[in-house]
Amino acid sequence: MEYPSKLIEEAVNEVAKLPGIGKKTALRLVLHLVKETEHRTILLTDALRNLRANIQFCRTCHNISDSDECAICRSHRRDRTIVCVVEESQDVMAIENTSQYTGLYHVLGGVISPMNGVGPHDLKIETLVGRVDRSAGEIKEVILALSPTMEGDTTAFYLNKRLNHFAIKISSIARGIPVGGDLEYTDEVTLGRSITGRTLFI
Amino acid sequence: MEYPSKLIEEAVNEVAKLPGIGKKTALRLVLHLVKETEHRTILLTDALRNLRANIQFCRTCHNISDSDECAICRSHRRDRTIVCVVEESQDVMAIENTSQYTGLYHVLGGVISPMNGVGPHDLKIETLVGRVDRSAGEIKEVILALSPTMEGDTTAFYLNKRLNHFAIKISSIARGIPVGGDLEYTDEVTLGRSITGRTLFI
Repeated sequence: MEYPSKLIEEAVNEVAKLPGIGKKTALRLVLHLVKETEHRTILLTDALRNLRANIQFCRTCHNISDSDECAICRSHRRDRTIVCVVEESQDVMAIENTSQYTGLYHVLGGVISPMNGVGPHDLKIETLVGRVDRSAGEIKEVILALSPTMEGDTTAFYLNKRLNHFAIKISSIARGIPVGGDLEYTDEVTLGRSITGRTLFI
Repeated sequence: MEYPSKLIEEAVNEVAKLPGIGKKTALRLVLHLVKETEHRTILLTDALRNLRANIQFCRTCHNISDSDECAICRSHRRDRTIVCVVEESQDVMAIENTSQYTGLYHVLGGVISPMNGVGPHDLKIETLVGRVDRSAGEIKEVILALSPTMEGDTTAFYLNKRLNHFAIKISSIARGIPVGGDLEYTDEVTLGRSITGRTLFI
């Protein structure tokens, strides 16, 4: 594609580096900014720069935060005996939206993936082990809320190995048929797990 | 959705104002920037600001340009007897990509749309009339390359009324079945136009 201006080309190239945005979408977004007032572009770029320059991560759970301790770790209303281990900050937001969990979190920053060169030392695993150790019995349960993928299962297995000498419960979120899902069209692995992980009908 | 940080919330709100980007996509893009280096965000925001601050429009055809005269209007290789009228700069890029057109362009900046409060005076129509007038016979043909919508047709009708007292040809791009399209599934208006606008088989 030939662009009418070097400025457009540079902006399109930068925007197209964002995940899931190709050159065509990037061009549409860039031309939208050109049509809008300059103030709009300044608001957008200021918000992004400000975010990147000032964002912090909680020193305890590594979740995204405005300060060095996140609102969840700071709160007195949370159950400090349970820690839910997740891959990314998005997962914390997703679980918070369910309003079904009142414990604390621990954000690993990814999963073990030898294919992508991510080993246990690239993740926040030592700090998790340290947290459980230092809590001196306050933490009673660690929930592993990782994706049901090869990498997620490998990470869960590794975490279990690192944590099973503590006197804590280690649990994993339930695998099964999603609410609204159709039994007939569920893959056999999920269906199998939904049977082995069956719960009592009360 | 509850965000873990005010900074994230502000960035998501700004990004979600872009066309076709909802809050979920905006969050994904913003968290991607947080994961990347700060330099990446600076490159992106610099490219956007630089674009918005320095972009110019050609004084003749109103296409996006690096200077006050665009590369097409400046070129000595273009056929100066034909002007193709389009809605937006994107349309110029699309037609240039076909390599089927060597004339000049005129970018209206939209189409007449009473529903959206866009009248003839909001578009670059006077400058088009002035261009044809000042060319003193050099411009021999004006091609109307507008979208085949109610608004596009209204604009084409209006332009025809404004230009038909000049000794020029006024043409419109062909309406018909797209290449690779299926006759059976073509709507009747398009099919009808493809019959009335039939061309000789050579």
